[in-house]
Amino acid sequence: MEQINKRNELITQWVLEAGKTIKDSFEKSIQVEEKSNRNDLVTEMDKKTEEMLIKNIRQHFPDERIFAEESDNEEIKDLNGVVWIIDPIDGTLNFVKQQNDFAVMVAVYEDGIGQMAYIYNVMKDELYSAIKGQGASCNGQRIDTVQDLPLKDGLVAISSLLLSGKNEAVRQVARKSNGVRMIGSAGLETLYVSTGRLVAYIAASLAPWDIAAGKLIAEEVGLVYTQANGEKIDLLKKNPVVVATPAAHQEIIQHLTEKES
Amino acid sequence: MEQINKRNELITQWVLEAGKTIKDSFEKSIQVEEKSNRNDLVTEMDKKTEEMLIKNIRQHFPDERIFAEESDNEEIKDLNGVVWIIDPIDGTLNFVKQQNDFAVMVAVYEDGIGQMAYIYNVMKDELYSAIKGQGASCNGQRIDTVQDLPLKDGLVAISSLLLSGKNEAVRQVARKSNGVRMIGSAGLETLYVSTGRLVAYIAASLAPWDIAAGKLIAEEVGLVYTQANGEKIDLLKKNPVVVATPAAHQEIIQHLTEKES
Repeated sequence: MEQINKRNELITQWVLEAGKTIKDSFEKSIQVEEKSNRNDLVTEMDKKTEEMLIKNIRQHFPDERIFAEESDNEEIKDLNGVVWIIDPIDGTLNFVKQQNDFAVMVAVYEDGIGQMAYIYNVMKDELYSAIKGQGASCNGQRIDTVQDLPLKDGLVAISSLLLSGKNEAVRQVARKSNGVRMIGSAGLETLYVSTGRLVAYIAASLAPWDIAAGKLIAEEVGLVYTQANGEKIDLLKKNPVVVATPAAHQEIIQHLTEKES
Repeated sequence: MEQINKRNELITQWVLEAGKTIKDSFEKSIQVEEKSNRNDLVTEMDKKTEEMLIKNIRQHFPDERIFAEESDNEEIKDLNGVVWIIDPIDGTLNFVKQQNDFAVMVAVYEDGIGQMAYIYNVMKDELYSAIKGQGASCNGQRIDTVQDLPLKDGLVAISSLLLSGKNEAVRQVARKSNGVRMIGSAGLETLYVSTGRLVAYIAASLAPWDIAAGKLIAEEVGLVYTQANGEKIDLLKKNPVVVATPAAHQEIIQHLTEKES
């Protein structure tokens, strides 16, 4: 892919701008409409943020395809060439209920491989990014490779539906760890693993835009990011996800696959 | 109780000072020793912070009793007179693993009734406090009474062991809500309910010092704080706890007691 440095500059600018617009919106009231279910709230800001990002991308990279949460995405049947994968507000429920703990996420993939990734924790003003092969950073400061801790030595994030559902194996994983934390944003939970606050994040069903940016950042700091059966991620569908230190990943996959069979 | 204003000034100063000492400690390495199990880490800072607070209290209020997490508390067989209840670092695991999301908690009770409460979210520099009958505030700014939302309109915090344990009723409560969040600090989780980020917090077993400050703050903003069977809290033992908006509290208690019987 060409123009990595120029792209990095542009995307950084767009994402920070999106975050500022979102923050400013808290001073106004937010109109919320319900989608198919109550856990899937779409706000004005979600749509507005996505439109801002898409407009910028089309202006500078008119030939590249965009795969985004609030779009119909009908033309995305493969990941050939350059594809932008966007979640304008990851953690919509937190955004609506808490005005906190949500993120703007942008990734650039080429032929299915992550090249650039951005996760912006808006309320903390922390922009995490990664460029393939060059490591990850937060606000320009390089992030260390993670320590390879086993499950018993760390906290894990597990998605709410998964831990309160029927899967007993995932609760056994929870009990083998130091404890569970739940933030409610796939992007932020992946960042918490990437910075060593957690050793793993397990989710039942993440969409491509929930995964794309976090996967590259996670892999650049030495984490393993796969489906819950250990197979690689398919970015054209929803995936059950395990992202973890190599040691914790092996334990979790073994546990989840043993119990399922 | 006498000298409320003077006490308020002193406690505020002590708690902020304790927070500063803790924050400064992150620049040094932290020595951790394991207590009875891995979820119960005691750090140097835990002990040091408690000693600081106790020294200050003894100097100004030498005749008053102190009930504190790291002390032996043998003399506390009732709550007659003025009793200080202290948790030097609530959320020790977060403190150790994340250097974030922990709190210093101090409460002053008189004849078993909460009179003054302080919860300091150290890394966010947010000091929540309450004086009985005068409402609650954050960094001096008054907090509104909570909106009385039902379970289906809000997020709930549930302690890690409880949600990953054998209690199916609590998972049904989780599924009736908008979703679960887990912070891993009873104090902060109670504050999240008190500020409307959550509608409820449910924990399997909280010690008196996990409860004391949060209970007064919660009650001052209109929340209900009881044991999981709806009975009132007993501050001389561990309690299963439900703190929630009046509407969500009723639903949760009904659910937990129905399923248990």
